[in-house]
Amino acid sequence: MIPYKILLDEQDMPRQWYNIQADLPNPIKPALNPQTQKPLTPDDLLPIFPMPLILQEVSTERWIDIPDEILEIYKLWRPSPLHRAYNLEKALQTPARIYYKQEGVSPAGSHKPNTAIAQAYYNKVSGMKRLATETGAGQWGSALSLACSLFGLECTVYMVKVSYHQKPYRRSLIETWGANVIPSPSNLTNSGRKVLEEDPDSMGSLGIAISEAVEDAATREDTNYSLGSVLNHVLLHQTIIGLEAKAQLAKVNEYPDVVVACCGGGSNFGGIAFPFLYDKINGKDIQVIAVEPSACPTLTRGEFTYDYGDLAKLTPLCMMYTLGHDFVPPGIHAGGLRYHGDSPLVSQVVNDNLAEARALNQLGVFEAAMLFTRNEGILPAPESAHAIRGAIDVALECKESGEAKTILFNLSGHGHFDLTAYDDYLAGKLDDYEYPDEAIKKSLAGLPKIEL
Amino acid sequence: MIPYKILLDEQDMPRQWYNIQADLPNPIKPALNPQTQKPLTPDDLLPIFPMPLILQEVSTERWIDIPDEILEIYKLWRPSPLHRAYNLEKALQTPARIYYKQEGVSPAGSHKPNTAIAQAYYNKVSGMKRLATETGAGQWGSALSLACSLFGLECTVYMVKVSYHQKPYRRSLIETWGANVIPSPSNLTNSGRKVLEEDPDSMGSLGIAISEAVEDAATREDTNYSLGSVLNHVLLHQTIIGLEAKAQLAKVNEYPDVVVACCGGGSNFGGIAFPFLYDKINGKDIQVIAVEPSACPTLTRGEFTYDYGDLAKLTPLCMMYTLGHDFVPPGIHAGGLRYHGDSPLVSQVVNDNLAEARALNQLGVFEAAMLFTRNEGILPAPESAHAIRGAIDVALECKESGEAKTILFNLSGHGHFDLTAYDDYLAGKLDDYEYPDEAIKKSLAGLPKIEL
Repeated sequence: MIPYKILLDEQDMPRQWYNIQADLPNPIKPALNPQTQKPLTPDDLLPIFPMPLILQEVSTERWIDIPDEILEIYKLWRPSPLHRAYNLEKALQTPARIYYKQEGVSPAGSHKPNTAIAQAYYNKVSGMKRLATETGAGQWGSALSLACSLFGLECTVYMVKVSYHQKPYRRSLIETWGANVIPSPSNLTNSGRKVLEEDPDSMGSLGIAISEAVEDAATREDTNYSLGSVLNHVLLHQTIIGLEAKAQLAKVNEYPDVVVACCGGGSNFGGIAFPFLYDKINGKDIQVIAVEPSACPTLTRGEFTYDYGDLAKLTPLCMMYTLGHDFVPPGIHAGGLRYHGDSPLVSQVVNDNLAEARALNQLGVFEAAMLFTRNEGILPAPESAHAIRGAIDVALECKESGEAKTILFNLSGHGHFDLTAYDDYLAGKLDDYEYPDEAIKKSLAGLPKIEL
Repeated sequence: MIPYKILLDEQDMPRQWYNIQADLPNPIKPALNPQTQKPLTPDDLLPIFPMPLILQEVSTERWIDIPDEILEIYKLWRPSPLHRAYNLEKALQTPARIYYKQEGVSPAGSHKPNTAIAQAYYNKVSGMKRLATETGAGQWGSALSLACSLFGLECTVYMVKVSYHQKPYRRSLIETWGANVIPSPSNLTNSGRKVLEEDPDSMGSLGIAISEAVEDAATREDTNYSLGSVLNHVLLHQTIIGLEAKAQLAKVNEYPDVVVACCGGGSNFGGIAFPFLYDKINGKDIQVIAVEPSACPTLTRGEFTYDYGDLAKLTPLCMMYTLGHDFVPPGIHAGGLRYHGDSPLVSQVVNDNLAEARALNQLGVFEAAMLFTRNEGILPAPESAHAIRGAIDVALECKESGEAKTILFNLSGHGHFDLTAYDDYLAGKLDDYEYPDEAIKKSLAGLPKIEL
């Protein structure tokens, strides 16, 4: 019998990340300098990123060695377990076999440390003493704070002011690992001061917090900037998820027919899916599904075009699926999936039909979360619950058709800091938001017209 | 090299619990009926406990089979990892080798489900439809709610009213797994109504909540009562921790010189220590340390005598270390260690010098928690941080003496729901409470005089 948890020994942990840029049928288009609209150069990035990460960003090497120092830290919690969801299968009465990779076992509670650790390491060896970043709900801020603590770097996290006050426990967690948490907008940066001059009561936004963190990094010699999703090197670091899952499935002679992950900026999706897309590109028949909230339907209803990563148009322009940089999604509980754009790599594989996208409503996602936690035990993050619902839908299709498919999904994090969301769900207070077409059209109409 | 995490495959999980009652040099004294002060009979217990658990409570069989149905549920997260604390060792510059068993990987976040699952199972097969229990901080309530959810039982948790309001996330977690959470004192029981008549604004206490849960169970045919610590069968179920740890250490040719656990009611201490005490009783040289808060110094400054488990004197009288049933410890953050008494089995092994007890102040415990989380990543529960500090103290003794001892401690749970405590610590707001001698003397003077 296949065990409930398929474990991998530390010595069998992958020693290389997989770089899908080596294998894409259509390479991604280059990111553009927001001022010149010309392709970015390494020099454009050096003020805020270390050279090893800049090189990874543009590398087309298929396999990239994971330095020993990173492997040593990964071993604090990796390889993460691969679970066979026997109890969920039974509850669904499906002939499908469901597996999930449990990334919630990291100290920060999600997959985010996979790249935070790598970024802290490369910045450390590049001579940096300090990292600056932004955080919304707090997942990324806690991951980077943990990473900096383990590598002895200072860390400053600009936290969107409304979250700073509404999610004090996430702030505490970040502080426990030693980072300095600053409610954004702050008086410490020009961008922050400018916002506060116009609106002293501003509760902030992710866009403002990004501007503050980038300015902090760009103006200090000892400081770089760190981003938790979207970028190529971030997705590269996350491929350890899929590579481990592959090795674990091989141990029990399994290979997935379907791979499912939720998708916001794209890092947990890319992390689990890309190593399987390598096989798909090489002829393997496999279905890959990115699940997003219908409140922020980037991949399913956005446009594949050049757009800015932020409202203030300070970031490079990326070729990606986007709902428009001034798109503001409603306040659904899956805060990590509320991004107007998407990773260029994920956008490319969706555009090339290597992966498909599905948009799900909030209530159905929480129903799936409840079914999962009452049968498998683990309380999922609302983001991860999108993947659960996506997997359940496939399992129910199998029940209908009688097919015994093998389904793999990524449980990207636990929901210990999301109990307000569960409270609201249980109290019947949750909105089941779907974004109106007209609003999306209006937002998309504001996109820049770029000819390369 | 010994890995960071020593894993055990599911097929190697222990299939029997270890019952220390088979091997105690001096058997524990019987619990007494609070009315008659005569030894309890199974009939006294049948209104609230199922026969299999009553039999386990008095069994002197050394090994007790774990039913397959329980093993299947355990496999959702067990065997739990045994970590080698390389980073902590390095931070301490100690020649000692430090290992810790990570019980925080359970869905409820602590060791408590080890017995909650077993209790739910035995009640289910004994025909019960519903369990009632009390909870203070919420750890036990969430463990039992999880267990009832997995076995399809109803669950009602009487939660001390002050915690119900102060710890809404713990309440939400309990509700997410389907239990009905009732702020205690409530209008649903005679004991609750009586308290409310006298004081309509009562914020409750663990003693009142126990009375309500026991009354609920005693007055309903379909309902039993469930307790999360202290009792013999609870400690029996927890021995899977120590048995796994032994098997994991054996895999790397290690055996501990010192075993450390925190001690409140005694269940996590008994769980990790008893399988090693078996070896000690059989001649092995091993030091076993129970760590308690100096704000509630039951084992270090209490008396070994018969006392009630609750303020209202409704529970059986147990022979145990106690600070007196009317002892009220200050509001330290390690809520799970705020108990006036202790498990009779733990009390017996301490009284017989098989284990020693140490009392630690709150600030030193949080210092240890910070050192641990910034080096090992995992955020510990304040209760578990007592064990961490206990282990660190031994490791620092080793640094002094140059001895390379092998230290094993139990990390009984994570601190994801204890961030208020860390916030207070980081803000310098934490009291370093030590209980005054006179108050303890006064409380002990109120103990009943019992001659058997």
